[in-house]
Amino acid sequence: MTIDIKDLDKVLQQAFDASTAVYKERGFQRRIGFGKKPALISVDLANAWTRPGNPFTCENIDEQIIPGMQRLLAACRANNHVVVHVTTAYQNTDINDPTTDMGMWHHKIPVEAVNLADEHLWAIDSRIAPVDGEYVMMKKRASSFSGTPLAGYLRSCGVDTILVTGVTATACVRTTICDGLAEGFRTIAVRECIGDRVPGAVAWNLYDIDAKFADVESVDHCVDYLNSIKG
Amino acid sequence: MTIDIKDLDKVLQQAFDASTAVYKERGFQRRIGFGKKPALISVDLANAWTRPGNPFTCENIDEQIIPGMQRLLAACRANNHVVVHVTTAYQNTDINDPTTDMGMWHHKIPVEAVNLADEHLWAIDSRIAPVDGEYVMMKKRASSFSGTPLAGYLRSCGVDTILVTGVTATACVRTTICDGLAEGFRTIAVRECIGDRVPGAVAWNLYDIDAKFADVESVDHCVDYLNSIKG
Amino acid sequence: MTIDIKDLDKVLQQAFDASTAVYKERGFQRRIGFGKKPALISVDLANAWTRPGNPFTCENIDEQIIPGMQRLLAACRANNHVVVHVTTAYQNTDINDPTTDMGMWHHKIPVEAVNLADEHLWAIDSRIAPVDGEYVMMKKRASSFSGTPLAGYLRSCGVDTILVTGVTATACVRTTICDGLAEGFRTIAVRECIGDRVPGAVAWNLYDIDAKFADVESVDHCVDYLNSIKG
Amino acid sequence: MTIDIKDLDKVLQQAFDASTAVYKERGFQRRIGFGKKPALISVDLANAWTRPGNPFTCENIDEQIIPGMQRLLAACRANNHVVVHVTTAYQNTDINDPTTDMGMWHHKIPVEAVNLADEHLWAIDSRIAPVDGEYVMMKKRASSFSGTPLAGYLRSCGVDTILVTGVTATACVRTTICDGLAEGFRTIAVRECIGDRVPGAVAWNLYDIDAKFADVESVDHCVDYLNSIKG
Repeated sequence: MTIDIKDLDKVLQQAFDASTAVYKERGFQRRIGFGKKPALISVDLANAWTRPGNPFTCENIDEQIIPGMQRLLAACRANNHVVVHVTTAYQNTDINDPTTDMGMWHHKIPVEAVNLADEHLWAIDSRIAPVDGEYVMMKKRASSFSGTPLAGYLRSCGVDTILVTGVTATACVRTTICDGLAEGFRTIAVRECIGDRVPGAVAWNLYDIDAKFADVESVDHCVDYLNSIKG
Repeated sequence: MTIDIKDLDKVLQQAFDASTAVYKERGFQRRIGFGKKPALISVDLANAWTRPGNPFTCENIDEQIIPGMQRLLAACRANNHVVVHVTTAYQNTDINDPTTDMGMWHHKIPVEAVNLADEHLWAIDSRIAPVDGEYVMMKKRASSFSGTPLAGYLRSCGVDTILVTGVTATACVRTTICDGLAEGFRTIAVRECIGDRVPGAVAWNLYDIDAKFADVESVDHCVDYLNSIKG
Repeated sequence: MTIDIKDLDKVLQQAFDASTAVYKERGFQRRIGFGKKPALISVDLANAWTRPGNPFTCENIDEQIIPGMQRLLAACRANNHVVVHVTTAYQNTDINDPTTDMGMWHHKIPVEAVNLADEHLWAIDSRIAPVDGEYVMMKKRASSFSGTPLAGYLRSCGVDTILVTGVTATACVRTTICDGLAEGFRTIAVRECIGDRVPGAVAWNLYDIDAKFADVESVDHCVDYLNSIKG
Repeated sequence: MTIDIKDLDKVLQQAFDASTAVYKERGFQRRIGFGKKPALISVDLANAWTRPGNPFTCENIDEQIIPGMQRLLAACRANNHVVVHVTTAYQNTDINDPTTDMGMWHHKIPVEAVNLADEHLWAIDSRIAPVDGEYVMMKKRASSFSGTPLAGYLRSCGVDTILVTGVTATACVRTTICDGLAEGFRTIAVRECIGDRVPGAVAWNLYDIDAKFADVESVDHCVDYLNSIKG
């Protein structure tokens, strides 16, 4: 049941190369590019996902995602760009109650692990704590746009571009990205600031995303962009 | 640049096994189950996707997806279940016009290949042609729920369960499934009736879907279910 | 600038009678009826709207809306029906900040009067306080369905009918009703439990609603219905 | 059953004056203003609504709404502004079929009068016929934003302001305006280009709209604005 991750990465890269040959021939994998008015959308970088000991705990948080986020936030704050911190929690985490605000999702994953009463679980990680004027938005579903005012909020701010970070690549980040594009925003996935908790999930999902929904760009590139314009 | 697909499947299975160990320990990969009032949602099984020669042409259509769909449709029609055929086309396919109804998507993929004026491209494949009373719904985005009346339509029909089929696993099927769960439906992905056009894409995306968003079930199992109840 | 309300009511009734003649001839003002699985959706019956001294304070609260709500809640609780208490507040009430979560609405009305930090303002009126298991949902806009998970939540509960109450007829109640119908629910406006703060607004808006979007029914009738079925 | 419309207008104006006193004191009826990138959203000015003989036929079409629309369209076309023509029709107009795409609305109003097969009914009135590049969008519900891609489409065009026209004030225009504001657009109701079919409905609904959801502005003012900027 063990897997040699280097082998996995190597085989995945072979699969991606084969796919890229098809995609290039058919006109996929285009570049959407950065627009003129960005926002940073940080998805579920709250303690239940960033700290050890929760079913939702993810990989590569301390060494990669948090440092990358700190650079992105610094660039946003220096240039007055919109920042939205998204988190997830539920009022009623009784999986046997058919009227829970978890809706249908607890029938697939352990969302009952994040009760609204346990603020320390859904609070944004203190290393990337929101500052005054940054919107902290609660969601109930995977996508940050689904069942939330996010799209309208961003439009009222005049935002045309979203840089998406957080966890997980498989679920909340990918759905947020797909919806962001659908809602009319130039959508960028910030490579090193997107995580997950199982092998290959980040690589595969970022590959699909870059082919069809958003440009996958490095933290370096995104920081340069954020510093190149004023909010 | 070639890839031995048997090797890919084998390595992917190893990755899935490793992920499953994590998921099981943490309480993911639960079963949502079938409800009492199903609808079949068939995504983009229109000629541009099912017939040769289009940038959107997919794999495994003739030998697997169409025959599976025919069995599902027969079971739906025999038992009076709701069927929705979803397709995609655009009024304005000029990629240089910033006011096209393609929105932002042509900046990533070749959606300009399906113009509304070319009905043969977006018409549902004649082998699974809609019959009277089956709703043919046009969408503009990946998800069948995004920017469409689908969720409200299904609620007005009293539907509580959706069986999702079609193409592609990477894009329109996966987003439809994620949104279906979010909108409160028991969501089932019909394994053999979901396709794509690049190696490994169906396997990987169905794995992610089964872990977090929908039960992946066989055509056999779904046909039995559809025959077990009346619409 | 004063107005004799009896005259207003009389003239409005004449206008409604004239409209009804047109509507009846053309097939409007149909009955949607009650379904099998109701939910009570109570809109903005929080202190800023129900208690004196706020820009949002409404009329007829103590003598009519609260007593009616108490009867509806008793019937819901006795029969295990779904209840949702909706309220409204904002994290950032600086009307000069273009990134406020008030979006565009403070450019029309004084939404800055309800800051999220002032829980006593957006807390549901204690005379109709939520009990365990009743979902308290925060919204940012007029409609309880806009930018919220409400439609999907109700679908996951199996609800097919919504009874809408609260304030104001002109804004949050009317938009909630229009969206409720659009999202596929049999929608009922509970006459005596809907309020506003200016003359004629309740009468006119309930007339429009009954003609086109929902059945306007009395508290008595709704209580009888709620007592006739089990949730 | 007859009503003297001059009396109605006079009494309504008294009611509005009384309401305005309350609204002004409390900080309602603010001005949202025009933004930098407008779109004209024309709602249901299709033959079933603009020509005699249909249940949906409206008043003041020939003498007021069409001439006003022609001036607005000329200004949009001269300055390259986005124009969206919205219309409504249904694939299945059998009111006894619970799976009709009319959803729940035929339980209130005669939407079965506009079948998709009768293109002459839902085609935009030829006096204001769409020109190349103007998006003709089909909807199923009252609001042009509900169950449609409109909000995302407008965001992808960079639009920040919508000028709303059409019919009816009571239903499709008012809901479109409420949703437009909610989705983050500066929303303007063009006074002379909004109609209905019953007495007082335009006056009352425009009053509510101006108090809470959008600025009601004259055609003259809107044409001047459209001519003052380039799209």
